[in-house]
Amino acid sequence: MDSKLTMLLFFSSVINIINTRVIITRYDESVCNLDSQTVKDIASYKNVTQRIMDEIRNKGLGQRTFEQFSAFLDKFGARPSGTKNLENAIDHMINLTRENGITDVTTEEVDAPHWVRGHEAISMILPRQKNIAVIGLGTSVGTPIEGITAEAVIVSSFQELDQKLDSDIKGKIVVYDVPFISYGDTVQYRSQGASKAAKKGAVASLVRSITPFSMYSPHTGAQYYDGNVSKIPAAAITHEDADLLHRLQDQGEKIFLKIEMSSSFDTTKSRNTIIDVKGKDNPEKVVIVSGHIDSWDVGQGAMDDGGGMIISWLAPVALHHLNLKPRRTLRAILWTAEEPGLVGAQAYLKKHMSELKNIDFIMESDEGTFKPRGLSVAGSTEARCLIAEILKLFSPIDKLEETDYPGSDITLIVDKGVPGASLLNDNERYYWFHHSEADTLNVLNMTDVIDCAAFWAAVSYVIADMPTDIPRVSPIYT
Amino acid sequence: MDSKLTMLLFFSSVINIINTRVIITRYDESVCNLDSQTVKDIASYKNVTQRIMDEIRNKGLGQRTFEQFSAFLDKFGARPSGTKNLENAIDHMINLTRENGITDVTTEEVDAPHWVRGHEAISMILPRQKNIAVIGLGTSVGTPIEGITAEAVIVSSFQELDQKLDSDIKGKIVVYDVPFISYGDTVQYRSQGASKAAKKGAVASLVRSITPFSMYSPHTGAQYYDGNVSKIPAAAITHEDADLLHRLQDQGEKIFLKIEMSSSFDTTKSRNTIIDVKGKDNPEKVVIVSGHIDSWDVGQGAMDDGGGMIISWLAPVALHHLNLKPRRTLRAILWTAEEPGLVGAQAYLKKHMSELKNIDFIMESDEGTFKPRGLSVAGSTEARCLIAEILKLFSPIDKLEETDYPGSDITLIVDKGVPGASLLNDNERYYWFHHSEADTLNVLNMTDVIDCAAFWAAVSYVIADMPTDIPRVSPIYT
Repeated sequence: MDSKLTMLLFFSSVINIINTRVIITRYDESVCNLDSQTVKDIASYKNVTQRIMDEIRNKGLGQRTFEQFSAFLDKFGARPSGTKNLENAIDHMINLTRENGITDVTTEEVDAPHWVRGHEAISMILPRQKNIAVIGLGTSVGTPIEGITAEAVIVSSFQELDQKLDSDIKGKIVVYDVPFISYGDTVQYRSQGASKAAKKGAVASLVRSITPFSMYSPHTGAQYYDGNVSKIPAAAITHEDADLLHRLQDQGEKIFLKIEMSSSFDTTKSRNTIIDVKGKDNPEKVVIVSGHIDSWDVGQGAMDDGGGMIISWLAPVALHHLNLKPRRTLRAILWTAEEPGLVGAQAYLKKHMSELKNIDFIMESDEGTFKPRGLSVAGSTEARCLIAEILKLFSPIDKLEETDYPGSDITLIVDKGVPGASLLNDNERYYWFHHSEADTLNVLNMTDVIDCAAFWAAVSYVIADMPTDIPRVSPIYT
Repeated sequence: MDSKLTMLLFFSSVINIINTRVIITRYDESVCNLDSQTVKDIASYKNVTQRIMDEIRNKGLGQRTFEQFSAFLDKFGARPSGTKNLENAIDHMINLTRENGITDVTTEEVDAPHWVRGHEAISMILPRQKNIAVIGLGTSVGTPIEGITAEAVIVSSFQELDQKLDSDIKGKIVVYDVPFISYGDTVQYRSQGASKAAKKGAVASLVRSITPFSMYSPHTGAQYYDGNVSKIPAAAITHEDADLLHRLQDQGEKIFLKIEMSSSFDTTKSRNTIIDVKGKDNPEKVVIVSGHIDSWDVGQGAMDDGGGMIISWLAPVALHHLNLKPRRTLRAILWTAEEPGLVGAQAYLKKHMSELKNIDFIMESDEGTFKPRGLSVAGSTEARCLIAEILKLFSPIDKLEETDYPGSDITLIVDKGVPGASLLNDNERYYWFHHSEADTLNVLNMTDVIDCAAFWAAVSYVIADMPTDIPRVSPIYT
């Protein structure tokens, strides 16, 4: 298996695990045994956290940043991996960083997948004529120019597919009409559906969009081809049409679809962007805050992950603005090419493998910047106890969720034994808009984004400045 | 002004008034003075209403009907006025009625508008290239084949448009980015926007879709051209794109759009469908339940107004099934061509003008068949008092809302002095899906539709069978 496939399999297992995490309203401190000096040290940050948050929330820094962010989204829109538009967006953020007086901004080159969607159309031919809204999945091959016209077989699960004879699937279009349980449970039908269908001889694969709620909205996302099967076209359709096809099949109708898709795929260069406020005592030690700047090619990537990118960008900018220098380096990373499979993060890991021991803590926001609630933390009990104590500074933004995989890009580094966290927020509707044309500025609430930014900057400052490192029991695996 | 324009102006004013109605949890009976015999008469219907509702809810009639309705929606999908598909759908319902043993089903011919949407596309040319999702408005003319490319001017209200010089609008595309207040308040920008823009020399008119919630969903609907201005292309765009264009304009950008639209418009024949269970004592007196069978050309017209159509259809079918003959005739009407402007209802009124005095009560369900709550009633205080007393039989479905315009089609007849009502239901999300691809079976909940149907059949039976007519103080205006 090639490294990309390994990555994607890993990614898929991560998402499944994310799904099983437990939310704890306040961390169960009965397992903690923090010494009184540490508790005192943490409490001493109350004033500075309030100063940072006040600057962002009430003194115009947050609002000015949100306005710049809004203009950024409207100027660039969607920023897919491998495009010139993404590189222009990266340059824009670099310039904005410099305009804010930070000179320590660098980039690291990444080989970025560049998949380009072409013409896409599906129509139901039988039992009646109907247009079917469609969105191709990332890396999908196209159809022949005349399209693929074939009978459709609708299934509710891989088990149902497996139970069918190959002769029932050969030459047909498999449609996965799988009810949304959770993103972690259901996304496998998007990521692996085409390969599993191809193994049984299918000529194309369609999946019910991975979302809990639809207003006839198709949602794209990554899929991958197994090395040993034919690459067949893979696309998502809406809940409404998947259910329609399923009901027609249940009524005994023969269903024929015509699918036309085109696409191209190559590899170009992109860049991770690294913005540092260097540590005054231990510049070699870093606390990382991050989000990804790339998006899918629909909507504006406002929520996924514009919000996470901008609040992470603001953390060093706000510290610089306030002339605050933490003990350790505070580093913001704007990951590139997350959507095709954590490609930017993979490159960073490879390049910085020998420095992992110096990453004190790593954070990412990639599941929304709605009303902030706290952090989802991976690490030892001791690490969680320390973070729980820090969160008391931010009450009511003081919830601690336990997880082993706190983010998307950063899971690669957390998996090596580095403690980390993602932003916990009121993201119940996140997957309504995710990977669709609806992921635009309209989804974001300025006050919530500013509140996320204020919390994110202040909490990362405390971690970067604390006298003690975040404890880790796990060794660094290299 | 031609009669169509009169109609549409009337319709528009009706919608504005609907918007101001008052919901009353239980009718204020301090204004009522029902005699004890009437109260006793009404109370005596408790058993029969429970029998009707039990048959529909618990003995399979409701579920079987919902399954037939589901198959109907999947077979025909959207049913726009003037199409062969709508006529086939009407034939299907006539056959289904006869299969249920009712022979008294007739149709009345209507001249039906037949507007057909062609190719529709909008792209933003400046300040950057972006596709803009679009849906043309009913009766819109097309653009020249090469499209219209022009500068866009975004306004928030008619007032803002009026304040501009004609020279600022001439040759440009007007975009109404008007926040949704309520359907009644905001729909005027869809129905009259093109004419008002054309008066100032605009070459096309776009409106932010009339909905409180968007997931990048364009919503169509009727619009009309004033007689004395140029007919310019009129279409709806999404909230997201309307807001994007507005923000770009606010940033000082020049915005150029290219609009391509085609359409055709003629008049064909359609039919209102009338299904009677004849009254045993006063067959000339009628109680009407109704919904419209036509829809816009997107989605499945499941909610607007498949649900209202099917629950009205089931009322006489259920009575026939239970061998219940009310004193007065119970008539279900499946209106045709409601969407282009109450065209079927207008034809019915014209044909039956002399019989209006015999319409005891007229009901329509055209605002959703979600969880039923009661009735929205137009008529005299005495009429409302009687209906409020009847609603006690259906507690907790016993809310009475006061209105002067209780429905869409039936407003024409109510306006003549006939008391009437529409179905009150939990339709908070109705306009999320309205006139869009999202109006499909996925929006409907079977149990809720069955509960609506049970209530609708039973309450209309009581009204049709009561010893006394529904009082009216208004004269019949002819």
